[in-house]
Formats: sequence, C-alpha cells, structure tokens
Amino acid sequence: MGLDHIFHPRSIAVVGATGGPFSVHTMMFLDTLIKIGYKGELYPVSPSQETVSGLKAYRNLKEIPGAVDHVTSLIPAAATLDLARDCVIKGVRSMQLFTAGFAETGEAAGAELQRDLVNIARTGGVRIIGPNCMGIYCPASALSYCPDFPQEAGSVGFISQSGSYTYLLVRMAAARGIRFSKVISYGNGADVNEIELLDYLSHDPDTEIVCAYVEGTRDGRRLLQVLSEAAGRKPVVIIKKGHTQAGSRGANSHTGALAGNDSVWEGVIKQAGAVRVDDVEEMVDMLVTFRFLPLPTGRRAAVLGVGGGVTVRASDQCESGGLVLPPVPDEMRTELKRFVPLAGSMFRNPVDVLAERYVDVWAPLVNALDTWDDPDILIWQISPEIEPLREEIVHQYMMETRSRMMRVFSIARKPKAIVVHAVESGPGLRSLDALRTMCQEHEIAFYPSLYRAARAITRYLDWNQQRNVRQYPRR
Amino acid sequence: MGLDHIFHPRSIAVVGATGGPFSVHTMMFLDTLIKIGYKGELYPVSPSQETVSGLKAYRNLKEIPGAVDHVTSLIPAAATLDLARDCVIKGVRSMQLFTAGFAETGEAAGAELQRDLVNIARTGGVRIIGPNCMGIYCPASALSYCPDFPQEAGSVGFISQSGSYTYLLVRMAAARGIRFSKVISYGNGADVNEIELLDYLSHDPDTEIVCAYVEGTRDGRRLLQVLSEAAGRKPVVIIKKGHTQAGSRGANSHTGALAGNDSVWEGVIKQAGAVRVDDVEEMVDMLVTFRFLPLPTGRRAAVLGVGGGVTVRASDQCESGGLVLPPVPDEMRTELKRFVPLAGSMFRNPVDVLAERYVDVWAPLVNALDTWDDPDILIWQISPEIEPLREEIVHQYMMETRSRMMRVFSIARKPKAIVVHAVESGPGLRSLDALRTMCQEHEIAFYPSLYRAARAITRYLDWNQQRNVRQYPRR
Repeated sequence: MGLDHIFHPRSIAVVGATGGPFSVHTMMFLDTLIKIGYKGELYPVSPSQETVSGLKAYRNLKEIPGAVDHVTSLIPAAATLDLARDCVIKGVRSMQLFTAGFAETGEAAGAELQRDLVNIARTGGVRIIGPNCMGIYCPASALSYCPDFPQEAGSVGFISQSGSYTYLLVRMAAARGIRFSKVISYGNGADVNEIELLDYLSHDPDTEIVCAYVEGTRDGRRLLQVLSEAAGRKPVVIIKKGHTQAGSRGANSHTGALAGNDSVWEGVIKQAGAVRVDDVEEMVDMLVTFRFLPLPTGRRAAVLGVGGGVTVRASDQCESGGLVLPPVPDEMRTELKRFVPLAGSMFRNPVDVLAERYVDVWAPLVNALDTWDDPDILIWQISPEIEPLREEIVHQYMMETRSRMMRVFSIARKPKAIVVHAVESGPGLRSLDALRTMCQEHEIAFYPSLYRAARAITRYLDWNQQRNVRQYPRR
Repeated sequence: MGLDHIFHPRSIAVVGATGGPFSVHTMMFLDTLIKIGYKGELYPVSPSQETVSGLKAYRNLKEIPGAVDHVTSLIPAAATLDLARDCVIKGVRSMQLFTAGFAETGEAAGAELQRDLVNIARTGGVRIIGPNCMGIYCPASALSYCPDFPQEAGSVGFISQSGSYTYLLVRMAAARGIRFSKVISYGNGADVNEIELLDYLSHDPDTEIVCAYVEGTRDGRRLLQVLSEAAGRKPVVIIKKGHTQAGSRGANSHTGALAGNDSVWEGVIKQAGAVRVDDVEEMVDMLVTFRFLPLPTGRRAAVLGVGGGVTVRASDQCESGGLVLPPVPDEMRTELKRFVPLAGSMFRNPVDVLAERYVDVWAPLVNALDTWDDPDILIWQISPEIEPLREEIVHQYMMETRSRMMRVFSIARKPKAIVVHAVESGPGLRSLDALRTMCQEHEIAFYPSLYRAARAITRYLDWNQQRNVRQYPRR
C-alpha cells in the first residue's frame, strides 16, 4: 500500500513553528501532537528560537540529528520550494502543507509555484499532501491537528478537499458516537489526490465506511473506477459541492479544482453505487445509520413518544423523508386503551402517550408495537424543547425515567432508532446532551429530527436494494 | 375587546393543585405564577390539603372568600362539569382546561362531555380556553405556565392549537432575541377559538407580528376574512399542520379538528396575504426577519466570512434559498488584494478572508462591500464548528476579535444579517451562545444556516411585494 507510510511517520518536523504566546498554528500542528501523545520524535523548526512548546527547536531541517519521516509546513508559500529541496536531501517521505497561496489563488504565479513544488518532491521521492490543507487525523497513530477530535480510533475513513469540512464532520459525528480510522484533508491535491486516497481507504482494513467531500477531480473516468471498487466493498458516502453557479465559482477559488457538471457527477456517484448526500449533516446521518442501525426489512415505521403538536409534525416529517406509517389497527387500539390512560394520548401512528409520567405503561406499549406485524422499524422520538419544566429536580426525574425507558426500548427485536429533536435554545441543551450520551451508551442510531432519520433510513434501504441488484443482476 | 379580560385576571384559582413533593402540574400552573410575580390573588383548590406551595388552599371554588376571575383546571375530565357549574356560581370570567379527555379522544363520550362543558359555560357567561391546552403566556400580566419563558414582554403574538408548539416557539425564538406580547395555547378550541383569537391579536396594540399554529378550523370562510384583515395590518405567519396522510390522522386525534384539504389551506393563507411556513424553525426565522431586518431593496447578497469548504457550501445554500450572489467585479478584486492577504482568501462572492487573524483588514473589507453597488444585503457567516482550537485562551481571543468585528459590521449602511452556523457538537455550543448574545446586543437578525437566512429573506421580499400589489393594484 503505497500511501500507508503517511499514516505512520516515526518522526515529524513542524517547520515554521513559533513559540510565541499566541501562535495558533503551532498550537494546532505541534502542541496537539504533544497533547495527545504522539509516540515518535517531534522537531520544531524555527530560525530564531531555541525551544518551541518545550521542545528543542532547529534552525532548519538539515540540522535535525535523526531521520525525519514527515514534515508539516507552516511557512509562507514563497519559501516552500527551498523546504521541499531540504526534504529531498533529508530523506523525508511526506510533506504536508498547511501553507496556502498556490493554484487555489487563481493566479498564474500560484499555479506555477505548485507545479514546481510537486516537481521537486516527485523527483526526490517525497509525497506532497496539500498544499492548502489540514493534513492527517489518524487517532491510532496519535496524528491530529485538533486537540478536541476524539483520541479513540473508529471505523470511518474520510477524505476531504476542504479542511473545514473535516472539523464539521469529525466534531458532528463524534457527538453522535462515530469514531474515525483516518481523515485526510488533502486541499489542492497537487500530488496525493482524491483518487489515490479513495483507493487507499477502499483497501484499508481499519476502514469500514468510506466518505468523501469533493469539489472536483482531474480524472473522472479513474474516479468512477475507484469509487465503484470501493462501493463494492464498503458503504461509500459522498458530498460533491460547487454545483450551483455561485458554488462553482467558490469551489474553483477554494482549491483550484474544476467543479464539473453536476449531472455528470450525479451519474458517476450513482453508477458507482455510492450514496450522495447534500451536506455534512446528511453525511453524519448516513454514518450513524450504517454504523448502528440493523437493516430494516422495509420502510414502514411505528413512531412513539410524547408530543401533541410535535406528534402531528412527526407524521409529516416521516412521510416527507420517505417512510410509511401504517395505521394502528382497531383491535390493537382497543388493546392499548386497556393499559394506557386515554386523556392526553393518541393511539394512531405516531402513538403519543405521556409515558414519562406513566412509565409502567412503557414496557407493554413497546412490546405491543414490537410484536405488531406491520412496522419494519420502531422510532422513539424525544423532544427536550417541549419539556414543561427545567428545574433540577424535574430534570433528574426525567432523565432517570428516560434511562429506564431506554433500557426497555433497547431490547425490542425490530430495528430501532431514536430521534432526539435538536434544540435551538440554550437551556434545552442539558437534556439534549444527557439524552445523546444515553443513546451512545446503548449504541442506538439517533438523529436530530424525524425528517433526517426518515431520509437516512430510506437512503439506507435504497442503497441496499441497489447493492442487491448489482450482486444478483436480473437477466 | 371581548377577550381582553382573559389576559388580565385579577385573581386565579388553580383547581387540582396538589402540594406533593413532585407535582409537575402544580409546578407548571401555580408555582410558575408565584415565581414570576403574578400580582393578583392566587388560590390553590385542593380537597385534601391545608396549604399548597405555601398558599392557603381551599376545598372548592365556593369556599374562596374573594372574587375569582380565572380558573385553571388540572382535575380529571369527568369532574369538569361540576367545576364549570361552580365557576358560573362564583362569577368566574374564564376557565382554562389543561385537562384532556374530550373531543380529541375521538370517542363519543369525550365529544359529549365537551359539548356539555361549553353549554354550561356559555349559559353562565364563562369563557372556556381549551380544553386540552396550556392556556396563556402574557408576560406583561405575569401570566405563564413555564418558568423559563422570558419575563420581559415583546411584540409577537402567537396562537397555537398545540401546547407543545408554544414551548418550541417561545424557547427557540427567545434564544434569537424575540419576545412575546401574548401566547395562547387554545387546544380543542371548544369556545375561544382560532378565529376569535386571530381577530383579537389583529387589533391588539401590543402585538406587532401575529403568528399561528393551526391544524384545522370550523369556519374556513370566516378564517379567511379574519386572516386577511390581520395581514392587512401586520405581518402574519402561519404553520398549518396535518397535511400528509399520516399527519391528518394525528391532527384529528390531537385536538379533534378537521384538518381539511391542504391546497385549500394554501390558497386561503396566500389569498389573505399571510406567510405560510413549514414549521417552527421557519417561523422563528420569519419573526427574526420581520423584527430585526430592514427591508432590502432586492435579493442580491454579498456574503463574507471565514470558511474554505464552508464558503463553497455557502453559495449553494444562498442560491437554493432564493438569493443571488453577484460576482465581485475584477476591479474590486484588485482593490481587495491591496489590503487582504492572498493566501487562504477567496475574492469572489462569498468573500472568504481569515479576518479573525487579520482583524485590521475587516473594516476596509466591510466598507468595500458596503459601498459596492450590486448587493442589496450583506451577510456575514460565522462557523463555530470550524474553529481550529477551543482552548480557553483562543476562545477568549476569538470572542474579543469577533466583538470588534461585529461593531464594525453593525454600522454598515446596507441591510445586514449574520449567520451563526448551528453546531451539533457539545463543545461548539460555548461559541454559539456567545455569538448569539453578541448578535442580540446589536439587534442584528441572525440565522442558524445560510439556507434558512436566504429562505426567510426571500419570503420577506415576496411578502412585501405582495403587500405592495395589494395596496396599489395595477390597472
């Protein structure tokens, strides 16, 4: 595997590390490695300082006594050609440039600088990551550029032309229980690019789900090939941006990529058997679904929870998202009425009962829905924003009740999901956090809205159907 | 104004208040009033207790020595007819029933109980609010059922068939700087209904913006009339739910209303000149827009902020939401390059500069966009989720920087909005909260996504256009 070494450098030099009182880049690319316990050698390179972040600093690469596997560049673009030459001399194997100011500027000078950089590196056997990128987050090797990214490794691999999307995806997915094998922000992709990276993740044994954010590619045919191969092995989820007129302008400026015609992209992704999503929120939803939700046999859902008007909106959201809510049969409704108080309840689907007050009805209710033939999946919706009271004593009581309810829900036999409705007000966040933690502990797929849950589950079913068609083509 | 008295009761009896250690309903309907300083007399009514929440309790209504203007019912449905008779005898003017178990159950017995209740009340001169509702939140009178609703009054009036939507709207809108004049959860609307309430808010001098959540109505013709009148005076924003098949089933069960054909509703709302939104999130966006955004002259926006890939997504979101992003002219781009560092920047629209690091370029940049003829509106997008570091020192620095940037932004002449991108991870919430507070202090309209900002601004322009057509019909 040609790229494997970039995820396992035995030593790293951070060039342009400055030890000032407020040097954000040093904090990102050097202090993070120290903080999360990177095991290899770390060498700050600074022309003017003796030590940086408590480590001995070197004036340049050549002064470093030991071997250097990987170099991170924080210096201005104009100085990177000399640095690349130093890398070749020093026997560096990979060089990542946070440095921007290359082809993405749209200026001829920047494009030329990028070509020269790649030429020097390729001739000298150094792989270039970037320029204009964040580089690598690989928790198993304690490689990271962000101290709050999770330090445990997981099974999701992500490649991203955009550095900011790696912050969005890792943070948002981490809050939903997802962990990562390898994340690569490849920026302009001047050398190591989307095709090589997808191919790598497709074969990487640590990566079970592959996702990608792309704005463009230089070789659509090869991309289709690599994507198809990857999607034949693992779930692949893609965000392709820059498809509106203004977006294309932005994408072009962002990493110098040609955005291409959106319908061509749509076709390529579909033909490959990958799942295209609109944006990072939907990507996280798909990751949660692939990771935690057993495949339902169909799109019929039973929804339960407390809500009143929120229950009415529930139906709309589910159906807009592609799920079907079969009506509760009359005999079942009669059955439910035997043990659920009528006032304040709705015995249609969604089933709305004040179970947080009558927790003893919860187990028979969940059992009734679980043994009801029609639904393929159970969805429990919880709305922290409609809790009538937020006093500490009530909060504690609610959380204990829900914890008991979740234990009961988690042993139902049908595939199941939880919707913890997103809150937009500060005070609701305490409940939101507590509920999310509970869902993670039970390893149940959870979503911030019924629409998003429905959409992700529908895509999951569509993906599976398409996969089956591929594996057993009709004649 | 026939309904005015329900917002100004001089005394309230809470019937069914229990003083136990964990009586949620008493906390909601009695303790809240004590906590927020309701000025009138408060009488708990409980058959078995001497005091409730520190107040002397009465065994029934008739025992209360003074006059009782308003009664809140927390007792079972079966006992409400006797209570209604007591209300008549006592000269009570309005009775709100949190109590459920009436027409909304879909059972003949519940519907009959509701008819009997209304008959007794109407005969005896008592107005009924509900049943199956939360009642009234009117901060100016210190009336509320939720201790965390804002205690300051504002200019938005809201009527809602659903009680849970009042929690959603008030809390979500409060976090965006919106305050309320009167909020009425009217539930089954057995007596006081959507038509009378809309008519009231339409004429209420304290209410500048009217919004409503409805699932159905008993008189479409009269509703259209009242809505048209209201929309002729004030912005009116409507959520109509229950329009998918499953939603209609839910709505019917929820408050016993007939949901009606959705396209008929669509026509009525449009003809009336009200703004129809899909759900509470969009309603909050419209409230923020009507309240804080000066009317732009058109739909061309200049977007600025830090983002990389987030900037690419920005263009898509704006254009999907109905705004147009005019391209930055060449001469202006040349001008910008004079004072903005090239590396890491994009000089198209969106304009993406690392101004958080180069805060001195912010003032000339904002000025350049403000004096640029093409855009009708400036939008600054901030993404807490892509902040590279969350250490306290960095957080402080970022917040001070953004505070300076916001002061500069707030004096631009064009209409302006801020997008503080929603975060879905716990750690990002600190920045989110701080940024929202800043926006509120400057009274700048802010939104959780560019799509939602664009959609709300577009609707604002459409609303205004329709209003102009109405006021000055073409011949």
